[in-house]
Amino acid sequence: MSEEKKITNTIGLPPGTLVHVGEEQSKKISISMIEYDNENLTRKEITSIDECFPISDTDTVKWINITGLHEVDVIENVGKYLDLHALILEDILNTEQRPKIEDFENHVFITLKMLTFDEEDYEVDLEQLSIVLGKNYVISFEEKAVNALDILLNRLKKNGTRSRFMNADYLAYCMIDIVVDNYFELLDKINNRIEFLEDELIENPTSDILQDIYELKRELISLKKSIWPLQEIIGALLRLNSSLINPSTLFYLEDVFDHVRQIMDTVDIYRETVSGMLDTYRSSISNKLNDIMKFLTIFASIFIPLTFITGVYGMNFNFMPELNWHLGYYIAWSIMILITVGMVAFFNKKKWL
Amino acid sequence: MSEEKKITNTIGLPPGTLVHVGEEQSKKISISMIEYDNENLTRKEITSIDECFPISDTDTVKWINITGLHEVDVIENVGKYLDLHALILEDILNTEQRPKIEDFENHVFITLKMLTFDEEDYEVDLEQLSIVLGKNYVISFEEKAVNALDILLNRLKKNGTRSRFMNADYLAYCMIDIVVDNYFELLDKINNRIEFLEDELIENPTSDILQDIYELKRELISLKKSIWPLQEIIGALLRLNSSLINPSTLFYLEDVFDHVRQIMDTVDIYRETVSGMLDTYRSSISNKLNDIMKFLTIFASIFIPLTFITGVYGMNFNFMPELNWHLGYYIAWSIMILITVGMVAFFNKKKWL
Amino acid sequence: MSEEKKITNTIGLPPGTLVHVGEEQSKKISISMIEYDNENLTRKEITSIDECFPISDTDTVKWINITGLHEVDVIENVGKYLDLHALILEDILNTEQRPKIEDFENHVFITLKMLTFDEEDYEVDLEQLSIVLGKNYVISFEEKAVNALDILLNRLKKNGTRSRFMNADYLAYCMIDIVVDNYFELLDKINNRIEFLEDELIENPTSDILQDIYELKRELISLKKSIWPLQEIIGALLRLNSSLINPSTLFYLEDVFDHVRQIMDTVDIYRETVSGMLDTYRSSISNKLNDIMKFLTIFASIFIPLTFITGVYGMNFNFMPELNWHLGYYIAWSIMILITVGMVAFFNKKKWL
Amino acid sequence: MSEEKKITNTIGLPPGTLVHVGEEQSKKISISMIEYDNENLTRKEITSIDECFPISDTDTVKWINITGLHEVDVIENVGKYLDLHALILEDILNTEQRPKIEDFENHVFITLKMLTFDEEDYEVDLEQLSIVLGKNYVISFEEKAVNALDILLNRLKKNGTRSRFMNADYLAYCMIDIVVDNYFELLDKINNRIEFLEDELIENPTSDILQDIYELKRELISLKKSIWPLQEIIGALLRLNSSLINPSTLFYLEDVFDHVRQIMDTVDIYRETVSGMLDTYRSSISNKLNDIMKFLTIFASIFIPLTFITGVYGMNFNFMPELNWHLGYYIAWSIMILITVGMVAFFNKKKWL
Amino acid sequence: MSEEKKITNTIGLPPGTLVHVGEEQSKKISISMIEYDNENLTRKEITSIDECFPISDTDTVKWINITGLHEVDVIENVGKYLDLHALILEDILNTEQRPKIEDFENHVFITLKMLTFDEEDYEVDLEQLSIVLGKNYVISFEEKAVNALDILLNRLKKNGTRSRFMNADYLAYCMIDIVVDNYFELLDKINNRIEFLEDELIENPTSDILQDIYELKRELISLKKSIWPLQEIIGALLRLNSSLINPSTLFYLEDVFDHVRQIMDTVDIYRETVSGMLDTYRSSISNKLNDIMKFLTIFASIFIPLTFITGVYGMNFNFMPELNWHLGYYIAWSIMILITVGMVAFFNKKKWL
Repeated sequence: MSEEKKITNTIGLPPGTLVHVGEEQSKKISISMIEYDNENLTRKEITSIDECFPISDTDTVKWINITGLHEVDVIENVGKYLDLHALILEDILNTEQRPKIEDFENHVFITLKMLTFDEEDYEVDLEQLSIVLGKNYVISFEEKAVNALDILLNRLKKNGTRSRFMNADYLAYCMIDIVVDNYFELLDKINNRIEFLEDELIENPTSDILQDIYELKRELISLKKSIWPLQEIIGALLRLNSSLINPSTLFYLEDVFDHVRQIMDTVDIYRETVSGMLDTYRSSISNKLNDIMKFLTIFASIFIPLTFITGVYGMNFNFMPELNWHLGYYIAWSIMILITVGMVAFFNKKKWL
Repeated sequence: MSEEKKITNTIGLPPGTLVHVGEEQSKKISISMIEYDNENLTRKEITSIDECFPISDTDTVKWINITGLHEVDVIENVGKYLDLHALILEDILNTEQRPKIEDFENHVFITLKMLTFDEEDYEVDLEQLSIVLGKNYVISFEEKAVNALDILLNRLKKNGTRSRFMNADYLAYCMIDIVVDNYFELLDKINNRIEFLEDELIENPTSDILQDIYELKRELISLKKSIWPLQEIIGALLRLNSSLINPSTLFYLEDVFDHVRQIMDTVDIYRETVSGMLDTYRSSISNKLNDIMKFLTIFASIFIPLTFITGVYGMNFNFMPELNWHLGYYIAWSIMILITVGMVAFFNKKKWL
Repeated sequence: MSEEKKITNTIGLPPGTLVHVGEEQSKKISISMIEYDNENLTRKEITSIDECFPISDTDTVKWINITGLHEVDVIENVGKYLDLHALILEDILNTEQRPKIEDFENHVFITLKMLTFDEEDYEVDLEQLSIVLGKNYVISFEEKAVNALDILLNRLKKNGTRSRFMNADYLAYCMIDIVVDNYFELLDKINNRIEFLEDELIENPTSDILQDIYELKRELISLKKSIWPLQEIIGALLRLNSSLINPSTLFYLEDVFDHVRQIMDTVDIYRETVSGMLDTYRSSISNKLNDIMKFLTIFASIFIPLTFITGVYGMNFNFMPELNWHLGYYIAWSIMILITVGMVAFFNKKKWL
Repeated sequence: MSEEKKITNTIGLPPGTLVHVGEEQSKKISISMIEYDNENLTRKEITSIDECFPISDTDTVKWINITGLHEVDVIENVGKYLDLHALILEDILNTEQRPKIEDFENHVFITLKMLTFDEEDYEVDLEQLSIVLGKNYVISFEEKAVNALDILLNRLKKNGTRSRFMNADYLAYCMIDIVVDNYFELLDKINNRIEFLEDELIENPTSDILQDIYELKRELISLKKSIWPLQEIIGALLRLNSSLINPSTLFYLEDVFDHVRQIMDTVDIYRETVSGMLDTYRSSISNKLNDIMKFLTIFASIFIPLTFITGVYGMNFNFMPELNWHLGYYIAWSIMILITVGMVAFFNKKKWL
Repeated sequence: MSEEKKITNTIGLPPGTLVHVGEEQSKKISISMIEYDNENLTRKEITSIDECFPISDTDTVKWINITGLHEVDVIENVGKYLDLHALILEDILNTEQRPKIEDFENHVFITLKMLTFDEEDYEVDLEQLSIVLGKNYVISFEEKAVNALDILLNRLKKNGTRSRFMNADYLAYCMIDIVVDNYFELLDKINNRIEFLEDELIENPTSDILQDIYELKRELISLKKSIWPLQEIIGALLRLNSSLINPSTLFYLEDVFDHVRQIMDTVDIYRETVSGMLDTYRSSISNKLNDIMKFLTIFASIFIPLTFITGVYGMNFNFMPELNWHLGYYIAWSIMILITVGMVAFFNKKKWL
């Protein structure tokens, strides 16, 4: 629950104070400026954010991608140029921010979580992606360089693709689509983890596995909690009725909305699977106890009458006729073997063997 | 959970890219063109999709059924003729698509899941059925040849039936009705499976059955998840207010809607039944442990005092009067028999026997 | 779950096909025609349904009651005379139909379930009652002769009662009221069953009772599922705004609505009670195991040290001083008795006895 | 579940039949007539209900309180004077009626449940309080004399209090407020019961306590079910928009509404507490079993090797060197003591002691 | 559950009676008057509440903070000056009041709970904070001096901060924000407690921990119950449409609203974690029982055959050839060692060691 531990960082500060909440990073912020229309695409790495502004009023789509959030004044400058609300800037910097959408006259602000399943610690990691969508521009803020945005860039580079024909709102949609696609990847990895634990559970049900299953269960709950706001955001976008979003893009957003619901369903099924694993674990413990007790019972029950017989002929009465019989000892053994056979047959009939 | 494993196939691709997601198939796509009105019905097997278009503006109902989705260009051609949206084509091809309905000016697009219960693996298999409903035509896309559509064709062949009098929307309704009827069949098979497992559970409650029950439980959850969108789709159709759907057909759709809700209820009752089976399994394990321990306790408790008595007369004290009694040995046996009878009576009274 | 087994009977048939779904019956259909106003009431047993139609447009209330659904053509004729929709006729004949209400211009169609608790099999039996309410008539269709409608007839026979002053819609309300009253009777019987099982559970908690409790639990779920549509139907009637239902009758319907909600609450409390019984059963098994193990532990713990002492003096060392003591044997017995008393006191203090 | 047992009393009777459903009472009905305005308050005990009617159209508030419901004709007379609907009269008399509110042109009818926790049987008892609120009068019907209405009367007797300034609707509000206050008292008593059972559970967890806890759980569910309609009723009053309720009274009703929600929350917390107690009970049984088995295991494990050693030297081999050693017997004892010490140390290390 | 115990304090009193419900305090009430605008800030400690009123109609924001609620007449005076409703005054004084919001023409009344986690008793303590927001003033009522309001004052003291530019509604928002921030702190402490208990659970799972976990669970439920009304209050503020709240402040309120939802999510995840801990506890008890029984079974199973063998050669038959063998004793030992080794190998293979 690493995300919960940091929640108090901004407590006591007045609202709107710009503080980067997240891991400190020494690397410099990197800024890319991509500008494209149907025919041309240019990409520039920029050192100072001031080069990008003011955003020219041409028909080309401008995409400014800012990687790294630890230089507060860069974000502050963007805010000044675009006239962003102080709380929006706080939201961009606070990487513990709940996903949200805010609709303004000149821009729409969206902040999302990109989830990746860390396959070493079996934990879900969260990266925040904030998007400011304007008339002909998209500004994206990411904590670390995320592989996903590179994919988007590569797609844009191809001439004649749909992305190149469409407006800035379609670019924003593409980002959301990539984030949602990421969830599918995550589900896939969680599925692998579930299958691994299911196998472990059958082969070697230790109490460590119990801990692992509970952790997985918790990850799934936390996952569900983080998909809810995503569903809300896309739902809000669909109902937004903003001039910034074209009707043709709405249709694509509906498609993403469907994907999010499919993710929700899958998470529910996974949760049920994990609950089943916990039950299986408990049943396996009970079964093991049954096996142990069955063994003890069978073993003890066979020897108890035998030991009794040896006890009988170990008594020291002066007058015990059997002791003087020549075959007495052998008869005693025979009786003991008969009893053993009888007991085994009895347990066999009871299906305990 | 075979359907989950394939979910990542289209990740990273730009939205609207036409790729067939599903099992590869070498068989050629087969296309049927059925045209009928109240008096005549013609059926043609077609080799090239271009023969069907443009759809003539006559009053007859045209039903084009396309079996097999692996030839992307066929689907693409249909899309071009009917002016279908790129995402609709993607949905037709992506057999992992969540059931959905999309309403356009000139056509309504519906994609459904046909469920069949594979009685060998005890798994629910899904086949996708997509329907494009236009003014006087229905185009249906199915992954594999589904038995159900043949039934529909046979019904159409009979002159004078209601299907022949009604419009294309009624044909689409018939398809939905057949899909829903399929769910009933599925429930019937699941019921058989439940009854089989219930019997097994009583006769021979092994931990394998536990696995089977959990699998069934998961199938039921997954089933419920797939019926939800079906309910939504029919509900959406009822509220659609589209000129493509006649009021008289609405009434039939309400009937199907009721059926879907009945299916939901039945699934809930089945889930409860399966939960009860899990409880029964757990109780049977506890009962078994009780039986084992009862046996051990009774057995041990009877012999413990007997063995003690043999121990007493096995002591080597020089002066032990009983040892010299002539009937000492027989008296010892009598005491031991008395104790045994007493213990049995005691356990009998305690109702442990 | 007898009702589920029949659900596939109409699969594959075109919608609206008139087939009687239910047990075959050889007895002839019986048709009663009751006609009444404030002053007169006449009752006729009718052989052919054609005698009833067309329904005269007088102010008297006409009630046609049809018992038995196996003669499809009778129902079909009613349909023709009243211009009933084909699906309505199908619903009347399909006794597995989910309760529903359909509002037409000239009549309202309601189909309900009459539940009875079979006290021999401890199962809930369902009888279907369909009602067609017109301007001045009510047609009721019942599968078998139901005692409840006789009660209604007797009530009508009394001059000057409210039923005689009111219109056909009040007659329909009375039928619904009787169906709902029936649920109360059912709850009463289920309550008896619960109390019986509760007593059994305390006196003799066998695994058969577990099965009985689960069955009861399932009946309650199935009951709840069948009350839901009833609530919906009455709710729909209240909102219907049909000219066929007088405002004065609405008030009575609200009363029935309240009753249905009370039934829902009671079913919920029963379900909770049954869940508690299952918990009690499990606890009783655990308690029994504890008792068994306590007995074994106490019994074994008392004899274990005694047997050890007899073992000590059963050793054959040449030099064992105690063996030669004259009182050695009695001292050994004294020690053993002391140990026994001590152990008993110990277990007493531990409150295990 | 005493209330459920009576539910069938009116089954089979035509709706609106006036029958007193509840315990038979021989005491006569008592009728009080209180009339007050800001300056004067008069109270009369009345023998015949006819003295109260017609209610004069003055500005004073008239409160007629009728205690006892077994004289049906008294209630019937009230109904005639006020023109109450037959079903309302039935609701007043049927003390198993679900709490409800009915809004008429000239009066509002409210029926409530007054709950008291019987501290002898630990059961929740219900008394019904019905209120008819008119323009300048309130008629209250109670099953038995309830202490709560006396409190209200005493409050009214004080000159210059708010109650005296306000209209009849405020008087009705005061009654509802007293009923809700009663719930808080009930919660307090349930809290005591919970604390008592919690203590018992720790000191002496018998299976009787399990029964008590389940009963408490059931009472809480039944309590929740009876608060739901109360919440609905007050909510309905708030939305009623009736000329009979002044805006200034609405504010007070909102306050009661808040109280009801607080009661709901508290009941939920209590239910959770009781669930926790059930879990604790189960854990305590498991812990007890562990203790028993630990004892047996430790005890048996210490003596098992000792008894084995005595067995070894109880063997009758002719040639056993130890038997002839002079210190053999003492050496055997030493070994046995050593083993005992070793075992104790071992169990100590395992933290089983 | 200390808050529940006091709930009956005002039962039986007429509504609106001013009684301080809460712990009695002897300290005098302290009143601060802070007045500020963008340029100046003055703070006065006031002895009589009358000095503050009437509130001058200037543009400066006036903040009157009253600490201590035990002097009823002070509160009553405030009520008179501001024309507060009697029930509002009752709400201010009743510290068991459910959080609520009331909207009047000239002021908005909000009452909130400030939660602190008492790290000694591991209990959640509640302090009530009531706010009256007027056109240019905020009156805050707190039970005890709360650290949080000092923080707010310090923030205000800094010239040029946003708080100083904004109106009274922003001041009220700041108070709500601080209350919500407090919840995060609380969650942090609960997180610590969870982690502590998780560690304890693994190291030393006693039944005391079970009690601690249940207490924590109950605290979380009670926490959730107290966050619900907070969410409602802020939601109501957002929809209030009151002239007292500026649109610019709404945006900040939306931010707090998001925080509250994040708190809800975290509480849900914590609840799930605590449920998991309970399951772990139960599993650890079962595992312990398994360990105990495994030990007993292994230990007993090894010695049972050995003791049998010593019994055999302890028998007193006259003719037992082995007894006369010279190596008989050593052979017996060899057999016993062999059996021991065999049993150990067997248990090793079974993975019980």
